[in-house]
Amino acid sequence: MSLVVQKYGGTSVGNIEKIINVAKRGIAYKKKGHNIIIVVSAMAGKTDELLNMAYQINKHPDKRELDMLVSTGEQISISLLAMAIKNLGHDAISMTGGQVGIITDTAHTKARIESIDTKILKKNLKQGKIIIIAGFQGVDLSGNITTLGRGGSDTTAVAIAAATKADVCEIYTDVDGVYTADPRLVPNAKKLNTISFSEMLELASTGAKVLHSRSVIFAKRYNVKLEVKSSFNKSLTTKGTFVIKENKDMEKVLVTGVASKIDEARITIKNLPDKPGIAAKLFTALADNNINVNLIVQSSSQKNKNNISFTVPKTELKEATEITKTIANSLKTKTVTIDENIGIISIVGIGMKVNSGIAAKMFSLLAKENINLQMISTSEIKISAVIQKNSIKKAVQVLHKGFNLDKLKR
Amino acid sequence: MSLVVQKYGGTSVGNIEKIINVAKRGIAYKKKGHNIIIVVSAMAGKTDELLNMAYQINKHPDKRELDMLVSTGEQISISLLAMAIKNLGHDAISMTGGQVGIITDTAHTKARIESIDTKILKKNLKQGKIIIIAGFQGVDLSGNITTLGRGGSDTTAVAIAAATKADVCEIYTDVDGVYTADPRLVPNAKKLNTISFSEMLELASTGAKVLHSRSVIFAKRYNVKLEVKSSFNKSLTTKGTFVIKENKDMEKVLVTGVASKIDEARITIKNLPDKPGIAAKLFTALADNNINVNLIVQSSSQKNKNNISFTVPKTELKEATEITKTIANSLKTKTVTIDENIGIISIVGIGMKVNSGIAAKMFSLLAKENINLQMISTSEIKISAVIQKNSIKKAVQVLHKGFNLDKLKR
Repeated sequence: MSLVVQKYGGTSVGNIEKIINVAKRGIAYKKKGHNIIIVVSAMAGKTDELLNMAYQINKHPDKRELDMLVSTGEQISISLLAMAIKNLGHDAISMTGGQVGIITDTAHTKARIESIDTKILKKNLKQGKIIIIAGFQGVDLSGNITTLGRGGSDTTAVAIAAATKADVCEIYTDVDGVYTADPRLVPNAKKLNTISFSEMLELASTGAKVLHSRSVIFAKRYNVKLEVKSSFNKSLTTKGTFVIKENKDMEKVLVTGVASKIDEARITIKNLPDKPGIAAKLFTALADNNINVNLIVQSSSQKNKNNISFTVPKTELKEATEITKTIANSLKTKTVTIDENIGIISIVGIGMKVNSGIAAKMFSLLAKENINLQMISTSEIKISAVIQKNSIKKAVQVLHKGFNLDKLKR
Repeated sequence: MSLVVQKYGGTSVGNIEKIINVAKRGIAYKKKGHNIIIVVSAMAGKTDELLNMAYQINKHPDKRELDMLVSTGEQISISLLAMAIKNLGHDAISMTGGQVGIITDTAHTKARIESIDTKILKKNLKQGKIIIIAGFQGVDLSGNITTLGRGGSDTTAVAIAAATKADVCEIYTDVDGVYTADPRLVPNAKKLNTISFSEMLELASTGAKVLHSRSVIFAKRYNVKLEVKSSFNKSLTTKGTFVIKENKDMEKVLVTGVASKIDEARITIKNLPDKPGIAAKLFTALADNNINVNLIVQSSSQKNKNNISFTVPKTELKEATEITKTIANSLKTKTVTIDENIGIISIVGIGMKVNSGIAAKMFSLLAKENINLQMISTSEIKISAVIQKNSIKKAVQVLHKGFNLDKLKR
């Protein structure tokens, strides 16, 4: 008998009707002979509703109390789903993060899972129950409720799958898998049958919002087989995209996907003294304030002077700019500029590890369309470039076609 | 330094503005040098909102899951209140029933408190924190979330006060104390400064909805000093009504209050065989179905035949009638009648224990107004009568005046 962990996001449990559909799917799997653990998020809109109440009190509410508040969202979903399953004649039990024994560190609103006690899960599975677990939450060693941050339900599901040695962790979402590009930008984008953890990770960080990065890291570390699939597809046999350990065959493909982001802005400081430790000072200050810096490029503009450019989410731009200006002032440099009119285009593929010339091909494809590259950043299996925001759609289409992704077989 | 437990109902924390007012009151008490524990209910309307979601799935949802669901209502209130207190510059911590160690039996939706672990409360009080506790909830020994049933937050507050040996347990509500009669029916009704536990208990069961019966029983058993007061009164020094252990002085007053109910209906079975065990059979069947029977009168109508009349809440009338008809059929009696057009009038006072003739006076006061008594039931400190519903207002006014309650000094 296999063990399947399923995770449903907020849209999939957005109302009572949808919750009943999830209940039916869970029961159908159970009847096929699987043991089932279901991890759910808060109903769509619920978390924001709770946050809005908190923000009426304070724009930066106490984090312990915020976790106490928002964790109720998932608690509502699990109880309703368990009721729905029982109402359909099957046994089920809902459990909060604390009840499952998901122990985290004490970092409220962005806690990390430290351990999971699987005894109670095994006991309930043995009794034939479908177990419903609240995603996104745990408790610290003192019993305080903690939450894992945005996308935390994915992480809960993967962690539960790892701890219980589940055969597969199915992530249900509103798309039916991972695509070579966003189908809204590229109509002939292809659904991938498989993708490696590393590729998924790079895609997640470059704009493909299918899976939360941290859950992919977790899955990679514990080698949990992930499947991304649609909760709106009624068939149980339709496959989604499997996120798996990479293999040699995968390297035959040069590029697996094209991703883009338009929710970042660029900050530039010019004429910094060319001395060691300046970049460290800047990025430590930003990290201390929880600013998520993405691309960084440093270049020398003239003798003994450097420029540093980096991108941050637009939601953090104001705070990041203030911090950067303070640092710039302390270095007697006043030239801090910002550009919100940018986009980031990325290509991802583990084939890059063994194939050279991919960057050159990417740049020439973009150059042919007169798309100017403002910043370039590369990793082992990813190449990203900052370009003008209004060129993003064209860039995605050109790269998708240029790397023959519409004919990709994976 | 004294310890004050305060309980605020759903209306008192009905929106963010009201929550902030509760926060201010708590801090004001703290600044006067008291240690403060605050017990709160769910925001007004919240519990019904949650129940309505459950009822969309099933009219009789699974009780364990129902407790999992509705307990989120109080969790939302406590986190918002703790945020509000912290935002006003004072330290606070919110705690669920489980976190406080409120252990109950396993009777979901109507659990009873078995023990409270006060260690964590004492530790947090010592650190100067205002502790905010979710009312109405606990956990069983296996860690399942349980709820205490309607009015359960009062019981939580009293239990916490008893366990921590608090100096007083203040119950905040939308009235400023316990009155000799409902001021909407009797404009010159007087607020009582003190009332005995027994009187409060009888008043609670006869229609005065100020305090939940179970909390009064609890307070009486553990001798917790209760004060009923208004959360809308800004002054900290305005006294409400103290519910205390009875003393000799109290017996000087014949009648302390007049209460009335119009939410019950009467069921009558006629011509029952005059054999032992018939009443037992009927009321066991009703109790097994959780029907709350209030007044019971049995009388013999003719030789070897009995009539039994009893009242039940109108919300339970349909179910109670069906059960009664089934029993009647099994006894070969078909005469089951119901009357929804009734009211129950009661007078309460521990003075009745030592003064005779009070019942006679009550009946003659009502007779003078041509109010006919359909059923009569007495306890040591209470006399109740079933009368026509449209006579209730007149009856309350007549009894209030006849027993000189408008001049009562207590």
